[in-house]
Amino acid sequence: MSDEREERPERDEDAEAAERLEAVLQAVEAGDAASLEALMEPLHAADIADLLEQIGSADRQALLKLWHAGIDGEILSEIDDSIREEVIEALPDEVVAEAVRELETDDVVDILEDLDEPAQERILEALEDADRVAVEQALSYPEYSAGRLMQREVVVAPEHWTVGEAIDYLRRAERLPDQFYHVILVDPRMKPVGYVTLGRVLSSARKVALRDITEDSFRTVEATDEEADVAYIFNQYHMISCPVVDADGRLVGVITIDDAMIVLDEEHEEDMLRMAGVHDESSLSDRVIEAAKGRAVWLGVNLLTAILASLVIDMFADTIGAMVALAVLMPIVASMGGNAGTQSMTVAVRSLATRDLTPRNAARVIRREIAVGALNGLLFGVVMAAVAAFWFGVPMLGLVIGLAMVLTLVSAALSGILIPMALERFGIDPALASGPFVTTVTDVVGFFAFLGLASVMLL
Amino acid sequence: MSDEREERPERDEDAEAAERLEAVLQAVEAGDAASLEALMEPLHAADIADLLEQIGSADRQALLKLWHAGIDGEILSEIDDSIREEVIEALPDEVVAEAVRELETDDVVDILEDLDEPAQERILEALEDADRVAVEQALSYPEYSAGRLMQREVVVAPEHWTVGEAIDYLRRAERLPDQFYHVILVDPRMKPVGYVTLGRVLSSARKVALRDITEDSFRTVEATDEEADVAYIFNQYHMISCPVVDADGRLVGVITIDDAMIVLDEEHEEDMLRMAGVHDESSLSDRVIEAAKGRAVWLGVNLLTAILASLVIDMFADTIGAMVALAVLMPIVASMGGNAGTQSMTVAVRSLATRDLTPRNAARVIRREIAVGALNGLLFGVVMAAVAAFWFGVPMLGLVIGLAMVLTLVSAALSGILIPMALERFGIDPALASGPFVTTVTDVVGFFAFLGLASVMLL
Repeated sequence: MSDEREERPERDEDAEAAERLEAVLQAVEAGDAASLEALMEPLHAADIADLLEQIGSADRQALLKLWHAGIDGEILSEIDDSIREEVIEALPDEVVAEAVRELETDDVVDILEDLDEPAQERILEALEDADRVAVEQALSYPEYSAGRLMQREVVVAPEHWTVGEAIDYLRRAERLPDQFYHVILVDPRMKPVGYVTLGRVLSSARKVALRDITEDSFRTVEATDEEADVAYIFNQYHMISCPVVDADGRLVGVITIDDAMIVLDEEHEEDMLRMAGVHDESSLSDRVIEAAKGRAVWLGVNLLTAILASLVIDMFADTIGAMVALAVLMPIVASMGGNAGTQSMTVAVRSLATRDLTPRNAARVIRREIAVGALNGLLFGVVMAAVAAFWFGVPMLGLVIGLAMVLTLVSAALSGILIPMALERFGIDPALASGPFVTTVTDVVGFFAFLGLASVMLL
Repeated sequence: MSDEREERPERDEDAEAAERLEAVLQAVEAGDAASLEALMEPLHAADIADLLEQIGSADRQALLKLWHAGIDGEILSEIDDSIREEVIEALPDEVVAEAVRELETDDVVDILEDLDEPAQERILEALEDADRVAVEQALSYPEYSAGRLMQREVVVAPEHWTVGEAIDYLRRAERLPDQFYHVILVDPRMKPVGYVTLGRVLSSARKVALRDITEDSFRTVEATDEEADVAYIFNQYHMISCPVVDADGRLVGVITIDDAMIVLDEEHEEDMLRMAGVHDESSLSDRVIEAAKGRAVWLGVNLLTAILASLVIDMFADTIGAMVALAVLMPIVASMGGNAGTQSMTVAVRSLATRDLTPRNAARVIRREIAVGALNGLLFGVVMAAVAAFWFGVPMLGLVIGLAMVLTLVSAALSGILIPMALERFGIDPALASGPFVTTVTDVVGFFAFLGLASVMLL
């Protein structure tokens, strides 16, 4: 967290990516399928997806018309939700069918979730029977559950097997998952009892019993668990894969680190955007009208709280009329309160998300925030008192704004920590709803303290 | 990103953890070492670290006095920087020595980085010679570089080996890394040429050549690369391990997904806290005076911008004196502008961090933001015009605030996107510095537009 990290030197890869993009667009414009193929073919699926997201819709359509043979399942998985439907619609049926057939079931589910009914049907029909059943079963789990996130392709072994038996089985197996990191040991009723890392399997003699080399730390999740909780345990316990069980404890699938990372990433993004009042805006490709709607909700709430604050000012209209300097200075108090409140609130929201702030240490954290608020309140109270006294030549005005600053910053610290905690207690996402409440408190307290003190002490 | 995700039901584990914590504290208070041991022993290292972070310093000291035999390297790794030094100082030398000796070198480096000189010495002395050299070499790489992040324990094979040779080698190997996911193929000069997943090794016949089953996608990073860039490629390409090479392209270590996840997590946290003006505050355990200092920087900057905005108001003191309603309404315009600016800015900062916003699509994104700002400006301009006209009975005042709202929200959208992009271009972290600039623009434009229009149209 030091300063060295702040610099962001120009990255060569960025320049390269920009050049490549220009070359691709030129090839598209010239209708030069061969050059386009030569440019796209060596790229990683994730980079192709990024490229498709970067360009405008018309260019995207033209590109996909010229080049779609290389579009595989991985690229479809990587493409952002907001343009995936458009891409799928632009592709010939057989390309989509082939692309989804090569994917693990969890990736097919991920793609299907965000599509309209007809597009969903088109993809389900393209799947082999077994896969279609697996996907439909996954879709029967609630949205944002472990069941939606898991892949059903698992690598299991009976708990009495040896390393040699496991290796022989793996060599004979016709279809294994693309990525797997453990052999899961199951009892005769398919209940997982432990797992062995592939590294241990590889480095142990053939005769060693698998049950003797299982990992110390082993945990499973239920298919109905929330994906956010699953991501939390991956992060907390540094896991790379986790077996998923049904209500009876039987193995039904496995979640791997890549899926958990995507969920964590989304949670982070959501918390950050929600705190700034940006809702349901998943990417830069979202349409204007949707983005405007999502943000209008928060601006509307903010308008109400701003009007509430103005009602407080209105109570002191006569005071302001008698001394216009108050109108000049009052936004400073409110602005400092708002910023200090946001600081406390952000720390609180983040600590609640990482589960570092709990009922146990709440009292200590609240005391800390009050102390921080009081210290900074005193500091900026003194500074502002001097500024105001000098600016308007009224020492008493300095005292008024100084006192108001202390009161406002302490109440900002308090509301910044207590409001998120209260929302969490009532089962409301603190990232989503804390902002307007905290701002209301700091504005109302700020204006009331400053104008109230002024009306008593100055007039 | 739908509403279902917002609910946060009470988690059973949270209740369990709280009960456990109470039991632990009771045992500590009673000086009951046996009960304490029974409570701590079954816990995962990450949970023990959390427990130590949750309690106050006095309780922590008392706990560590009663129970330290179970403190191992993993627990030391998991403990937050802010209390790690305190914990290490509370432990007997031999416990610390044994704990660090069992760790991979990257974890030792991670612990050492944040310690004072004498504590660093104490740990370096406890290491075996080979490990100490490895740790000292790692510390010679710049802070926040891949060289600091990597472990030097690697699993390599000559490129001509078969699966059988690799398995025989792994079975004979005396010390393998705790976790490894690939066998890295190297040429005679130790340059990595590809890697094979353990799953492929296990599922292939002994006579298969390793070079025939390498992964299609293979990339390495340089030891001097920034850790943020390393974390980005792990996330972008869904990697689980990545070989690290020196300037000559020779293999010097490997970075695994768990290290990359920690970096990603820290980057997210930093961006979120920095945007709210919270600097260098790594955890709730930080001391009051440090936290207050870190936040005072931002509050100081904010005070300057707030004073700047007040100077604008002061220009119109006569106008306000003639019509106090302006003082009542003006914070509404500024508040709406600030919020809309923060929305655009957050989207921009996030998109820059994920590299979704590039020079290529900048024009499109800027147009989109302006459109969103204009739409919401019109919406809330009309609403506020009606409210103001009705409230103060002056229709012209409604027109003034409506127009000011449109101007402010469009300029908020523009500054919210342009300022982060400009900062990024100049190599300054947009998360760190955008806020004050955006707020200054929205405040100044808001007050100037509203009071300026009022002085022209109303008086």
